[in-house]
Amino acid sequence: MILAAERNIGTGGLAGLKTRELAREIGVANGAVYNLVEDMDELTLRVGSRTLARLDAALTAAESDGTASPRETLVRIAVAYCDFAAENLELWRALFEHRMSPGKPVPEWAISEQMNLFRHIYRPLAELFPQRTPTELGVMARSLFSAVHGMVLLGLEQKLIAVPVIELRKEIAIIVGAMIDGLTARAA
Amino acid sequence: MILAAERNIGTGGLAGLKTRELAREIGVANGAVYNLVEDMDELTLRVGSRTLARLDAALTAAESDGTASPRETLVRIAVAYCDFAAENLELWRALFEHRMSPGKPVPEWAISEQMNLFRHIYRPLAELFPQRTPTELGVMARSLFSAVHGMVLLGLEQKLIAVPVIELRKEIAIIVGAMIDGLTARAA
Repeated sequence: MILAAERNIGTGGLAGLKTRELAREIGVANGAVYNLVEDMDELTLRVGSRTLARLDAALTAAESDGTASPRETLVRIAVAYCDFAAENLELWRALFEHRMSPGKPVPEWAISEQMNLFRHIYRPLAELFPQRTPTELGVMARSLFSAVHGMVLLGLEQKLIAVPVIELRKEIAIIVGAMIDGLTARAA
Repeated sequence: MILAAERNIGTGGLAGLKTRELAREIGVANGAVYNLVEDMDELTLRVGSRTLARLDAALTAAESDGTASPRETLVRIAVAYCDFAAENLELWRALFEHRMSPGKPVPEWAISEQMNLFRHIYRPLAELFPQRTPTELGVMARSLFSAVHGMVLLGLEQKLIAVPVIELRKEIAIIVGAMIDGLTARAA
């Protein structure tokens, strides 16, 4: 069922995820879906978990692609993030668009899976800025991620700002490089 | 009716905009709404137009708040953008979440209103990088905007990354300053 849900989100986004369709696809009665998962939130989070695992693998692959300075590593994972989003557009969007039903908190396991991905940014930053505290590095990782996320989001949006992916990758590399250079100069 | 729609979006987001409610509030029959605007797209764009005008005024105020270097101006308008988003959360989100009905393009007037706001970023960049072409400056303005937008979006999201606005303003100032420094160093 998770695979069927992944296929549906991958094609039609979160709006494409419908209990009735899922039940039909996996060949069970509508109500039986809720014997398999607690609710649609859980199902969406399970799909998100698979997306995050593939993103994790993509970032790891980008890091291990030959030796690189911490600065270069940060540029590489930013570009890899852009590529992943472009190639998994709907599943990637679903990660950010999904809202839990009112009053339900995001489960701990899902939060820690998300947070775990920040290590890709944190590690090279810790190498670059050994004098910073873990809290400061965490803030820096968050800022850097959000900035890259914004460039990818609006760049792939095809609305106000539509950029061909090949251009977007270049722009991201320039901006991430500049941010790191600026932060390094200030720290020196 | 535009004011009523603005109030509804401001409270409940785009999802809060319903023909039936609007008609009731302004005291007309449901069908009569479409004598006043062509469709919900037009109504939403008209509300967006008002939001953009207020954002424009807020950025202009931030720029004219005493003399500042181009770098400082860019930091100020980024922080002003953050403040505006925080204070007009639902109306600001509606600018980015609204999608035209399938097959309908965004009207020219709405695109040019959006593009017109980029002058706030373009001008100080042109001062900082006089050797860049207008196209290069346009790309730089777009990158800078998207990066700041991402930080504001995820920072105010209260989901994966929730940051108090006062912290977010500081982080944005640091990152924008670092980006400009990095870009300036590379251009030198």
